[in-house]
Amino acid sequence: MDTSSPSPLSSALVAHLQARDQLIAQEKSIRFDAEKLAHLSPAEKEAERIVRAIRAEEHISVWETNHEKPDLFPGMHFFTSKSIMEKTKLFKLLKTMPKGCILHCHMDAMCDARFLLDQALLHPEMHILSPEGPLPSSGPFSTYHSSLSSLPEFTALPRSFKPTAETSIYSDEYVPGSWIPLSKARADHPVGTEAFDKAVLGLLTIEPGSSYEDYPTSDKIWTKFGATFIVSRGLLGFEPIYRAYLKQIFYSAIEDGVAWVETRINFLSPTMMAASGADDLNHSDWLRIYHEVVEEVKKEMALKGRSDDFWGAIVIYTTIRFVENDHLREAMEDCIALKKQFPHLIAGFDLVGHEDSLKPLKYYLESLLWFQDRVKEEGLEIPFIFHAGETLGDGDAIDDNLFDAILLGTKRIGHGFSLAKHPLLMQLCREKKIAIEVCPISSEILRYTPSILNHPVQILLNNGVPVCLSCDDPQIFGNLGLSNDFYQVLVGSEATGLISLAVLAQQSIEYSCMDPELKKRCLAIWRKQWEAYVDIIVAGNA
Amino acid sequence: MDTSSPSPLSSALVAHLQARDQLIAQEKSIRFDAEKLAHLSPAEKEAERIVRAIRAEEHISVWETNHEKPDLFPGMHFFTSKSIMEKTKLFKLLKTMPKGCILHCHMDAMCDARFLLDQALLHPEMHILSPEGPLPSSGPFSTYHSSLSSLPEFTALPRSFKPTAETSIYSDEYVPGSWIPLSKARADHPVGTEAFDKAVLGLLTIEPGSSYEDYPTSDKIWTKFGATFIVSRGLLGFEPIYRAYLKQIFYSAIEDGVAWVETRINFLSPTMMAASGADDLNHSDWLRIYHEVVEEVKKEMALKGRSDDFWGAIVIYTTIRFVENDHLREAMEDCIALKKQFPHLIAGFDLVGHEDSLKPLKYYLESLLWFQDRVKEEGLEIPFIFHAGETLGDGDAIDDNLFDAILLGTKRIGHGFSLAKHPLLMQLCREKKIAIEVCPISSEILRYTPSILNHPVQILLNNGVPVCLSCDDPQIFGNLGLSNDFYQVLVGSEATGLISLAVLAQQSIEYSCMDPELKKRCLAIWRKQWEAYVDIIVAGNA
Repeated sequence: MDTSSPSPLSSALVAHLQARDQLIAQEKSIRFDAEKLAHLSPAEKEAERIVRAIRAEEHISVWETNHEKPDLFPGMHFFTSKSIMEKTKLFKLLKTMPKGCILHCHMDAMCDARFLLDQALLHPEMHILSPEGPLPSSGPFSTYHSSLSSLPEFTALPRSFKPTAETSIYSDEYVPGSWIPLSKARADHPVGTEAFDKAVLGLLTIEPGSSYEDYPTSDKIWTKFGATFIVSRGLLGFEPIYRAYLKQIFYSAIEDGVAWVETRINFLSPTMMAASGADDLNHSDWLRIYHEVVEEVKKEMALKGRSDDFWGAIVIYTTIRFVENDHLREAMEDCIALKKQFPHLIAGFDLVGHEDSLKPLKYYLESLLWFQDRVKEEGLEIPFIFHAGETLGDGDAIDDNLFDAILLGTKRIGHGFSLAKHPLLMQLCREKKIAIEVCPISSEILRYTPSILNHPVQILLNNGVPVCLSCDDPQIFGNLGLSNDFYQVLVGSEATGLISLAVLAQQSIEYSCMDPELKKRCLAIWRKQWEAYVDIIVAGNA
Repeated sequence: MDTSSPSPLSSALVAHLQARDQLIAQEKSIRFDAEKLAHLSPAEKEAERIVRAIRAEEHISVWETNHEKPDLFPGMHFFTSKSIMEKTKLFKLLKTMPKGCILHCHMDAMCDARFLLDQALLHPEMHILSPEGPLPSSGPFSTYHSSLSSLPEFTALPRSFKPTAETSIYSDEYVPGSWIPLSKARADHPVGTEAFDKAVLGLLTIEPGSSYEDYPTSDKIWTKFGATFIVSRGLLGFEPIYRAYLKQIFYSAIEDGVAWVETRINFLSPTMMAASGADDLNHSDWLRIYHEVVEEVKKEMALKGRSDDFWGAIVIYTTIRFVENDHLREAMEDCIALKKQFPHLIAGFDLVGHEDSLKPLKYYLESLLWFQDRVKEEGLEIPFIFHAGETLGDGDAIDDNLFDAILLGTKRIGHGFSLAKHPLLMQLCREKKIAIEVCPISSEILRYTPSILNHPVQILLNNGVPVCLSCDDPQIFGNLGLSNDFYQVLVGSEATGLISLAVLAQQSIEYSCMDPELKKRCLAIWRKQWEAYVDIIVAGNA
């Protein structure tokens, strides 16, 4: 603005600018990070400045004037931005940030898909079948056009199992539905093992190449999304793979600066195959192994002098919101029995799956209320930690899940995508300290938002609603750890800076299911880590 | 839920359902339509029920199970949904609804593009030139790849003008930059006149066929959007066309149940060509003609006994947010002079254009404050009616336009797309009665949202922020009148029904720039129209 010549209007201008600063400050005071921002150390102020400067510089150099790809912008859809994002200084800096906890993720979609396939290839027990005919001898094993019934299946079979057919799974003589050893199917692939691997990985992931045209709607991409879980569960259902996979979950979290993981586990299958070949590992065994792996990783970390970098992991019991009430009550009794056996592991109960197409919480109300009584009767504590509001709707039966979840005392809300449409519910979440497990990249890929810029997370943050950022299903989406999701939120708004992310990390601890004693200890550890991290940034070594 | 056997839990269930109903009702009480919904006549209740039933039925029959096109959903992007939407019962019903006022539209982008072209073809004064070489002899005259400098230009030239060249504008001998009569360019088109028309219409519109790939970002599509205005202004800048165009604006509004139009007019060009051929129609003439046309339409409507269906139209003076402060002050003086001459016509002042790439209000603060003083000094009232928050940003210099607009006492806010991110500003808009001129389809096409489901309008409505729905630039987007935009909002949320739309229509009158006396009269007329409309719906004749 032209301020070269002093004018009689200056006083009006000064008054406007003052009122402006005040109004902006007043609005920022509602935000979740206001208190922290009011009490920064000099080092924190400097780190904030440095990170904002890097973001501003890369906004131009990496995104706006990128000469390899046109039409980029910071915060754009992860399918397009992943490879660019991961080369930025900002991302590298976020990789080493102490991020606290992953509070929203699904156990069977947590590791790099390549890791899972490599594990499966180690074991002759692993088999594959094609249900409707031979597998295609080139290209993907399944496309978005395929029906679920044509999806290849994977399973572990005891060593004693003799395949009925010696034919190639790609030949016309292949009898649909007959199990073929995975290694044989791989060796037989007409194009080669690499093509086989690519085809299997394609079943386990939603690839960045998947176009908007392939999956134009949330419904469409949910079908593909659901199919990846079926494949993943087939590959995971064998003790040695399950063990290795769990360990990898924890190590890849640690690798990304995450020290605590709350995994939702789907307990729909009654058993998985033991290392011995017997199909008799029940839910109690699943948790025993989970506990063993957590302890193993703790021990290994202690040996490396890195105990502070891994605090542990717990389980949220889940079943899918297509079950009937009688099955749900069985699952609830199972959950209660497991809680008694593993009180430190079972931390909550949830119903998962595509909200828009499956049953609303209202359908299960009587069972859910019954569960609360049963849990109390047993002298236990198993809070609900519901998925709710993962929908584009407003004021409909699905969106209403938010009302039921809150009235049922949900400890946190998974996704809560439609919560931003509900001023009263946002206020209740603030008052009752219900944190929203926001999964930015998951919402982008599952077609709830075209980019972080349209994601309601900024509305939640600006309203002071407690939020924890999470990755949901990184095996499928490619967003391992929390760095990608942190990155999106950081570049999605000028209101959000490094300090905001620190508050989000701290909130992930505060809203975790840790017992109060452990929580206190971990908060103290995290604060130490955070201060060290800030010093590294300020020293220019991040 | 299974309620077949009475259980000791029923009381808990009853309590939950009661609390649920209460909480939902409590949240709905914040909405903009709460008061109206509490005082419905029996006929209004029945009309609401009928419209909800049609919507629910067509949700399935038109959208979900449409066998001609897959992957449809109600509220999807207007590019895909327009032709389907316009065949629905719901749309036909909305066409005849009395909708009150269009409060956000740009004069030079208001009529069907075909109408404008037909007008231009009537006048031998209309000419075309191609600045960089001959026009392409087939296909579009410009694509999204073209630079603005290669865009064909249109203008009116006096009959005395002799074209320098007799060559075809498509031939290699054509001298770039030389004016050719429009009719000759049309007759010379190698493929035929139809192909010529199609190419010109392509310059005036953003076609439904334009793919996401063509315009992946808001910036990209804004370039194309801006180009259509250049073409439109060239065709419009001739008195007889301007007159016919204005008349068409009012008649197409009336046709859609709209009785009052507030047109933003861009006064950047000093003159347009008079019917006589002299390029001397100044801004005062523009308004004189505007007034004459309004009066003409009023008279014609009175003769048809339809005076109640057209209340009039006013002008919001605009210039573009790329001008410098000295030019802005000239425009402001011009606006003040016009206001004195046409006090009933000039109703406000605004700065328009692509907020993300042009200057923020802050750049103009001193001039804007100066204007307020000047207006007061003259004893006039010319409120600001600012475009603000038409951005995906949050907490940045562009998003901050919302703060400046509100502090400068803006009467309404154009678009306010980012307002939903600002709880305090939403509250201020409620308290200060600042209505948001929401343009759903414009926001879809200009890439602020992929569908109405991600549009923040529901957040504004649920927060009780006053909203008026508007069409912005129907010549470019294809959403003539208000029915398309009303349709999107109606199918975008279960919380919104016919009564909600009635409140939106009523608000468009309440937040218009009419003087209090006229407003009162028009509100009374509208209420009568609304009651008649409700009766027609209830009688099954809509």
